[in-house]
Amino acid sequence: MTYCIGMVLNEGLIMAADTRTNAGIDHIATFPKLFTFENIGERVIIIATSGNLATSQRVISVLKQQIDRAEPLNLHSCDSMFQVAELVGEVLLNSESHYRVTNPMSAVDFTSNLLVGGQIKGQKAEMYHIYPEGNFIRTCTDTPFFQIGESKYGKPILDRIITTETPLNQAMKCALISFDSTMHSNLSVGMPIDIVIYRLDSLEVKIERLEQDDRYFTRLAKAWGGGIRQLFDQLP
Amino acid sequence: MTYCIGMVLNEGLIMAADTRTNAGIDHIATFPKLFTFENIGERVIIIATSGNLATSQRVISVLKQQIDRAEPLNLHSCDSMFQVAELVGEVLLNSESHYRVTNPMSAVDFTSNLLVGGQIKGQKAEMYHIYPEGNFIRTCTDTPFFQIGESKYGKPILDRIITTETPLNQAMKCALISFDSTMHSNLSVGMPIDIVIYRLDSLEVKIERLEQDDRYFTRLAKAWGGGIRQLFDQLP
Repeated sequence: MTYCIGMVLNEGLIMAADTRTNAGIDHIATFPKLFTFENIGERVIIIATSGNLATSQRVISVLKQQIDRAEPLNLHSCDSMFQVAELVGEVLLNSESHYRVTNPMSAVDFTSNLLVGGQIKGQKAEMYHIYPEGNFIRTCTDTPFFQIGESKYGKPILDRIITTETPLNQAMKCALISFDSTMHSNLSVGMPIDIVIYRLDSLEVKIERLEQDDRYFTRLAKAWGGGIRQLFDQLP
Repeated sequence: MTYCIGMVLNEGLIMAADTRTNAGIDHIATFPKLFTFENIGERVIIIATSGNLATSQRVISVLKQQIDRAEPLNLHSCDSMFQVAELVGEVLLNSESHYRVTNPMSAVDFTSNLLVGGQIKGQKAEMYHIYPEGNFIRTCTDTPFFQIGESKYGKPILDRIITTETPLNQAMKCALISFDSTMHSNLSVGMPIDIVIYRLDSLEVKIERLEQDDRYFTRLAKAWGGGIRQLFDQLP
């Protein structure tokens, strides 16, 4: 399983993804699921993946190859985030349908879901949820965040806290609490967590990794767990 | 959708179920999903249902009919909670497979999941999760609660709070917070909520209903929501 969050806030973008993959409960590994495509000072594009790992990796590889080969349409040539979403959606659908068509009898689920966030210079920051069918939806003021993968356990805290007004550091804190709740309830979501905190108009991005024993995360999870119990005890 | 919780604690049993049913988003109704079978002073049996409403109602009707007709094996004649679980599992599987077999081309899901809790005089209180296949599992000290239906949104708070040591009133409070989180995130789970608080060895049980505007529930939900935001703001 996987858990990824993406948010569009007034101050910028937050994206986070765990790194655990499993093919059956006894085949667990660590793979990155958060990828950046940037042209510093001009655009940043961040993609988070969930679902079939081969499909997800193929999408990322094809998108990179398009840039390396300077194909007319690639992530660096798109003139809007909408066009970026269209391109990623097309590559996703092609990747999945190729294996579906060549394996008509297979019960394997070749689908993936993606989050695509980013900003092109002079334009707004945007975030899309790309479905396996290649179509997509964009966040809005009413719904400023998306989740893919194991989304339910960690949704209540996001629902209670996140609005477009939430400052970046508070939003990241909320994302980490959401990860903590999810990892408590689903073993197949696990550390390390890759995160991106993108400040609007900086047009530069860096993936940071929270390792298993990250001191801030451990402290936050402990304070949250203790605080919840204390709050619970105080309730009428 | 549906959300039901059942717990076995040192002090007794807690069971709770919402009452919203939906067949499509535009066909919403209120039906009870919590049922009691008691022989005051001798046994109490409580059943919570989720899944196909026709199947669930058929199970309850057949179990009642068995008692009314004084069939040799019925919920009042079983000599253990294990035998109760076996009987309920058999009726559940029969109810589902009857419609599955008579509708081989139908895509309708005729399955239901049930929680069966109760106590027979001189024996321990027990709680079973009965699967659509008729088999079942029982709670234990390590895992003292079960959920059926829309279980994920409301699971983190149960994971953090509930042990067999939890007093009945605290456990009920925790169950209601779990319902509040679930109803925030899934519209198809809704008030009123039916609850049972069964004190061990009392061998008497009553379903109570929390209506839409229940003052305690409203106060609790407000205090929890406000407390969560306050706790969040205080975190490092």
